[in-house]
Amino acid sequence: MINSTIISSVEVIAFDADDTLFINEPYFEEAERKFCVLFQDYLSHQSLSNMLFKTQVDNLPLYGYGIKGYVLSMIEAAIKITNGTGSTKMMSKILEIGKELAQQPIVLLDGVEDTLAQLHGKYKLIVATKGDLKDQQRKLHDSGLGHYFHHIEVMSEKAELNYEKLFNRLDINSANFLMIGNSLKSDVLPVLNSGGWAIHVPFHTTWEHERIDHEIVHNNFRSCKKISDILPLLL
Amino acid sequence: MINSTIISSVEVIAFDADDTLFINEPYFEEAERKFCVLFQDYLSHQSLSNMLFKTQVDNLPLYGYGIKGYVLSMIEAAIKITNGTGSTKMMSKILEIGKELAQQPIVLLDGVEDTLAQLHGKYKLIVATKGDLKDQQRKLHDSGLGHYFHHIEVMSEKAELNYEKLFNRLDINSANFLMIGNSLKSDVLPVLNSGGWAIHVPFHTTWEHERIDHEIVHNNFRSCKKISDILPLLL
Repeated sequence: MINSTIISSVEVIAFDADDTLFINEPYFEEAERKFCVLFQDYLSHQSLSNMLFKTQVDNLPLYGYGIKGYVLSMIEAAIKITNGTGSTKMMSKILEIGKELAQQPIVLLDGVEDTLAQLHGKYKLIVATKGDLKDQQRKLHDSGLGHYFHHIEVMSEKAELNYEKLFNRLDINSANFLMIGNSLKSDVLPVLNSGGWAIHVPFHTTWEHERIDHEIVHNNFRSCKKISDILPLLL
Repeated sequence: MINSTIISSVEVIAFDADDTLFINEPYFEEAERKFCVLFQDYLSHQSLSNMLFKTQVDNLPLYGYGIKGYVLSMIEAAIKITNGTGSTKMMSKILEIGKELAQQPIVLLDGVEDTLAQLHGKYKLIVATKGDLKDQQRKLHDSGLGHYFHHIEVMSEKAELNYEKLFNRLDINSANFLMIGNSLKSDVLPVLNSGGWAIHVPFHTTWEHERIDHEIVHNNFRSCKKISDILPLLL
């Protein structure tokens, strides 16, 4: 049963960026498809995809999130896949895939601009996103949404400790903080655990690393089908 | 003639991180040397170094600063240098150079810890560094200096506009802000232009991209040979 009672006491609303404000994961999936086509003489798409995912997750502690780490993991996976026999032309193709990824157009999700416009002035709006600083700043800039936001916070990991640092920096109590995003793991659970509010607005596809397999029941948790559905809970 | 009059009205002191708090550039120089050895059958060290630098600077708008962009530029330069005939084993070596670079020990520069300890409690101390979020957070964490700082700001570029955003976020006037760092281009000039104070503490080596070739004369500018020399200007 979905809890749809009004959310009270919120002062700051933080929005996740990727797949909450604008499209992201489909671009990574497209990059992965290109990678799999490039190496399809070596292994099945499924095996290539698995090797890439494993390499990427193994490298997360060192590289963090974002396009550059992803491309470095693609190169590392390619070396393993070809057992050192691949050509540098293939490496060059991977660099191209990465440069394309870093320049994809920013496509806002339905209702985002209108939702921000209606909340603007009534709440302090911020962006709280994880990933690569350069990528995220470029995307926010290209989105044209920058003027709605008081602050853009790029976090290396959306963990409880990092949310708590953010509350300190914004000088607010967790009870006055609401996070809105498409990832239960990154946008919802750590915020609820820190005493804040969270609304889940799912996107049609979620990166494997972000998936969780249990249901969330919590007084401070809401779920909405689309971003404009958050308005009746807040206005 | 060096201006050594006391600095007044400062409330926030921001420290650059790389080569101001701890060693950085020598690690990149070491990585570059390894790169040049790897490809010495193709070109002279000087030509290899020039090609790497050019590739890196060309990619700055897309990749930004930091280790991951540097490694991607190394791979791109290697493909050009070997004209597509290089082996993936060489690419693997480059990835290794990058992973080593991302795990170098943090070596504090002389006098840093004592200087921070003396200023702590008297000023609001922050870190203002550019580069990759993940790299910088790892380095600050490993430095053991985190507890001296109220805030760590990782900027994608140390340009006037970004300093001005920082002043807004910290809710201070530029006249109350002092930046300390080893780069005249990134730490000194934009801060002076925005109305702040700056102290240059040079490091023995500076990345070519950070060099400027004119002298700075400004009321709000000081220069110190080593970091502890800033104390008489501030206490």
